[in-house]
Amino acid sequence: MPQEALVQEEDLGLLVDLYELTMIQAYWAEGMNERATFSLFFRSLPQGRNYMLACGQQHVARLVTQLRFGERQIDKLRSLNLFEEGFLEWLAGFRFSGDIHAVQEGTPVFPQEPLLEVEAPIAEAQLLESLVMNYVHLETVLASKASRLVNAAQGRGVVDFGMRRMHGIDAAVRGVRAYHVAGLTGTSNVLGSVTHGLSAQGTMAHSYVQAHGKEDDALLAFARHYPGTTLLVDTYDTVAAVKRLIERMAEDSSLDIGAIRLDSGDLEYLAKTCRHLLDEAGHQDIKIIASGGLNEHSIRELVVNEAPIDGFGVGTSLGASSDSPCLELAYKLTEYAGEPRLKHSPGKHSLPGRKQIYREQEADGSYRCDHLTLRDEQAPGTALLQPIVLQGDFQEAAMASPDAAREASLDSVSRLPPELRSLVETRTYHVTISDRLHACRRLAESRLGLPPDD
Amino acid sequence: MPQEALVQEEDLGLLVDLYELTMIQAYWAEGMNERATFSLFFRSLPQGRNYMLACGQQHVARLVTQLRFGERQIDKLRSLNLFEEGFLEWLAGFRFSGDIHAVQEGTPVFPQEPLLEVEAPIAEAQLLESLVMNYVHLETVLASKASRLVNAAQGRGVVDFGMRRMHGIDAAVRGVRAYHVAGLTGTSNVLGSVTHGLSAQGTMAHSYVQAHGKEDDALLAFARHYPGTTLLVDTYDTVAAVKRLIERMAEDSSLDIGAIRLDSGDLEYLAKTCRHLLDEAGHQDIKIIASGGLNEHSIRELVVNEAPIDGFGVGTSLGASSDSPCLELAYKLTEYAGEPRLKHSPGKHSLPGRKQIYREQEADGSYRCDHLTLRDEQAPGTALLQPIVLQGDFQEAAMASPDAAREASLDSVSRLPPELRSLVETRTYHVTISDRLHACRRLAESRLGLPPDD
Repeated sequence: MPQEALVQEEDLGLLVDLYELTMIQAYWAEGMNERATFSLFFRSLPQGRNYMLACGQQHVARLVTQLRFGERQIDKLRSLNLFEEGFLEWLAGFRFSGDIHAVQEGTPVFPQEPLLEVEAPIAEAQLLESLVMNYVHLETVLASKASRLVNAAQGRGVVDFGMRRMHGIDAAVRGVRAYHVAGLTGTSNVLGSVTHGLSAQGTMAHSYVQAHGKEDDALLAFARHYPGTTLLVDTYDTVAAVKRLIERMAEDSSLDIGAIRLDSGDLEYLAKTCRHLLDEAGHQDIKIIASGGLNEHSIRELVVNEAPIDGFGVGTSLGASSDSPCLELAYKLTEYAGEPRLKHSPGKHSLPGRKQIYREQEADGSYRCDHLTLRDEQAPGTALLQPIVLQGDFQEAAMASPDAAREASLDSVSRLPPELRSLVETRTYHVTISDRLHACRRLAESRLGLPPDD
Repeated sequence: MPQEALVQEEDLGLLVDLYELTMIQAYWAEGMNERATFSLFFRSLPQGRNYMLACGQQHVARLVTQLRFGERQIDKLRSLNLFEEGFLEWLAGFRFSGDIHAVQEGTPVFPQEPLLEVEAPIAEAQLLESLVMNYVHLETVLASKASRLVNAAQGRGVVDFGMRRMHGIDAAVRGVRAYHVAGLTGTSNVLGSVTHGLSAQGTMAHSYVQAHGKEDDALLAFARHYPGTTLLVDTYDTVAAVKRLIERMAEDSSLDIGAIRLDSGDLEYLAKTCRHLLDEAGHQDIKIIASGGLNEHSIRELVVNEAPIDGFGVGTSLGASSDSPCLELAYKLTEYAGEPRLKHSPGKHSLPGRKQIYREQEADGSYRCDHLTLRDEQAPGTALLQPIVLQGDFQEAAMASPDAAREASLDSVSRLPPELRSLVETRTYHVTISDRLHACRRLAESRLGLPPDD
């Protein structure tokens, strides 16, 4: 019986779409081994999003430098009867020898801006297509969703309860880092948190209440096991449960309850009612946590309506970024053998050349606009694409800790024009295209005999 | 530097939400170790879906029987300063000792029907919550989406191009099996296909065309490397590319081209135009494959409009089931110590007890309705919940091969009332609740002093 459960590191080289392997065998057979640049970008923002937070690029860049094809992987490819022995030997000796430039994890990015560029002999760069896209797509989608929740909560904590809805265990573990970078305040996910050196948070489930005969017995037992814990009060009737809890606290002053959690019903009404009951009984220190089908819109409504909620737990809408689970990331050839290349399919045009993004600030430090240029150009502002792999060597300094990436990301988001932090589409952040980049596109078009695309 | 890339099998026990561990430590401390039943089900169908295909339950059941906590995992939990040594010892000795009943992979399921039920001492069953939900959620969501594409294509092939949009590498590999079970005809995903013993399919990317100076040189080079291959013809101008290709085929009769792929533009118009051009030149044998932002609705439109397309490649909409990436799966305690248990939160009621689903057929073999009963009841039809783990032993016979699961699934979907295979919500499949199950609910409610919930 094959072990189907988990992807092993030595199998990561097989995480390709078949056409990558057939194309690079063709390059190998044709002796096409000039240096190519592939650019990872998106053409438009998903509906309702004003920015995306780039995430995952450091992570996958490090993996790329470790990518190898072992005997077992080569045997599997040999069994497909598509590949020549000489090409399989080339794969067996594969080591990524190129460069990767990327923006920092947690950087807000906009359409046409490369999140990452790979420069290497064309077969090497082509081989990475699906792996790089899969990694950056997932973490960027999840970090961007988390950033919206952070914006909506306006300083209240938001905790990830999404593991059960996340798509598989790799997403569940990597997502925790992306959420942290974007500013969530915690996660219930144990493996995700220990993997990234973060702390896990937790309350209790309805099953604990159900398993005990009486609800208040269950709540008190749990509070005695875990002083300062959060008690789930909605298994049968929220207000009745809170009233009984207050009675039991009056009988036993040693009880230490940190918070109650509301998980269903009219959360605004219940939060106001429970806050009133708790305050009246002198329990101003007991916090109220809300969960149960929340998303950024319902959180914003609760915040705007001044529901006395101290923190939010979000599961389903976060775990797969349910309103927008995909980003149309593209990984496109933009230069080959020193010459600009582009694509001209309807609605899928691309900009040629190796690029740089300059982010220009106002005098107060807020972001004014970006300048998209060729790599060797100068423009006002800070250059966002920095080398993270050089001649096949991962630059360890490029791998920020989760806390450092989070700090940088929250700072960046705070510098965006404020309308961009809205939950609905407001304005387009201005990204200029440099004259030289325009000229480069026209040159590539004219060489292909194509009409200018402006 | 920790290896953050991949989840190791020995870490799977940590794939829990923290509250599972704190709750089971409380059970352990309280000596609550009676047998519990947890039921995995959903309360309502996602918008637009008339059924879900249950998938992943066999897979996770096998993992559950292999779940262990090693020294390294125990050390990680110890470092959280939440757990007593005696409880950590209990975890170190953990072996799942219970039973799991599940429906077959690829079975159409409806609201309130258990996809799976776990019966074990309460701590064991509680520990599995997030792991079981994560596995079954992902594969059920992906298989259900794939089933819609199969329904829309009406016999034409549908190939998975979704790896780059799938949420992480675990989803990318497991999804391939779920797609196959649901009836997709292929995948471009190499690791996913070799893992499950399936074959991968592939065409070529725009980059191959772009890297070569002239488009037709690129297409011919690729066709010579891979006789019978599929050529991508939309990099610059689809119709012009096909015309040039026909000219080149006229010059070199040895060229063997299996298909052309259209990846952008008006696919119906282009398919009809290209089909006409190819037929006129005597190339009736060259097939036309379409891709580029397709989903079940656009596929149905192309099929209804008789676009001469022989197969579809689907990426983004499939990879994360983008219109409906989440299912509100619940894992709820329904029995403890032989007594029925339920939840009564607004909108989140549950049915108590250990259950069975009977699927009743019409005389012609089509499905008439389902009967949801207590486990030990009899009702007309076939009992869908079958044991896949007994006293901790995985029943290998319960793990169908991908091909066997696919055959059973396609057969089941074909027996559904035809309206249920529509892409929009049509009718509700009838699921009766047995009198004894009703009575069991009323008993549980009255014991809790709750009003009847009917």
